Amino acid sequence: MVTSQFATQLPQDNQDLSGLLGQHLIYTYSNGWRYELYIKNSNHVEYRVHASVKDVNPLAGRWVKDQKAVIARLGNGMYSIAWNEPTGTCVNLVMDTEQRWVHFTGFLAKWVSDHPELTVVFQNEHLAEIQALRDAGPIAPQVQADLFGTISFAEYSGTDNEQVIASPPGDVPDGFLDRTN
Amino acid sequence: MVTSQFATQLPQDNQDLSGLLGQHLIYTYSNGWRYELYIKNSNHVEYRVHASVKDVNPLAGRWVKDQKAVIARLGNGMYSIAWNEPTGTCVNLVMDTEQRWVHFTGFLAKWVSDHPELTVVFQNEHLAEIQALRDAGPIAPQVQADLFGTISFAEYSGTDNEQVIASPPGDVPDGFLDRTN
Repeated sequence: MVTSQFATQLPQDNQDLSGLLGQHLIYTYSNGWRYELYIKNSNHVEYRVHASVKDVNPLAGRWVKDQKAVIARLGNGMYSIAWNEPTGTCVNLVMDTEQRWVHFTGFLAKWVSDHPELTVVFQNEHLAEIQALRDAGPIAPQVQADLFGTISFAEYSGTDNEQVIASPPGDVPDGFLDRTN
Repeated sequence: MVTSQFATQLPQDNQDLSGLLGQHLIYTYSNGWRYELYIKNSNHVEYRVHASVKDVNPLAGRWVKDQKAVIARLGNGMYSIAWNEPTGTCVNLVMDTEQRWVHFTGFLAKWVSDHPELTVVFQNEHLAEIQALRDAGPIAPQVQADLFGTISFAEYSGTDNEQVIASPPGDVPDGFLDRTN
């Protein structure tokens, strides 16, 4: 095999996720929707949906721990993070931790789009209820959403740290979300 | 506003899709599944699922025209292409047309995963039947898939060209899929 210092490396050949694992990120989409995401380990994420700084986010107040996710490295500082929620909603994020942007492609279950307020809970304490709502549906046709956002804060918090996402979004201290780095 | 020749441009500030629109692409995932995708215009794609060159692809033979899609530019030559199928399946591709790779994140409707053979049709001629199957479900829990692939052939074929994806996958001429460029 011919190798070169300058050979293009395909992302499938480098799945080192160490630049992402344990990261605790705060980002805001162009419509003002503000999220907090913790990359707990190579196959779990946790998040809080915060009050929007512009358009109302009907999902604000929702928070989730131990969401199974599939994470792949796409390039330098760039990752795909995707998960299937117990609600029936599917989420795909592409995140560039160097340029500090995120692109969201989501497919909201129709019942979630119709009644987002039913999912504004600490989901882990309402799993049976959420899954019953999902099974009642309808899930399709899903409502597709596409958003760009910018990452304002990123901090390594270790992996499997139960203290990062540990209280409702409304309970974070003043200024917590406005930190930048 | 301070501007610089070297300022980092965020992808949300450049949504020029001209490098992707009209492209006709052939790519193969690491498991041997081979696909053909035509970026018909800024909000439609068409595709054929070809016979695998390694593991059996239970969706081989399926083909689709005029699938609504949301396309976003993520960087130089890099795009997100995402769609929600009438089956209830959700698809998200990240495609790098310069480095020639594709990353697939898909959420197969459970009924599709259980009975893929029911979707191996020219979908446009079976829409009512497919939607009835989708509504019968179940859609959840979706089966999440994550695959990397390499693009072996890419050709600009104009936009809104009805001749690119116009016959069943099994009808392509000998050597058609083996072209490289």
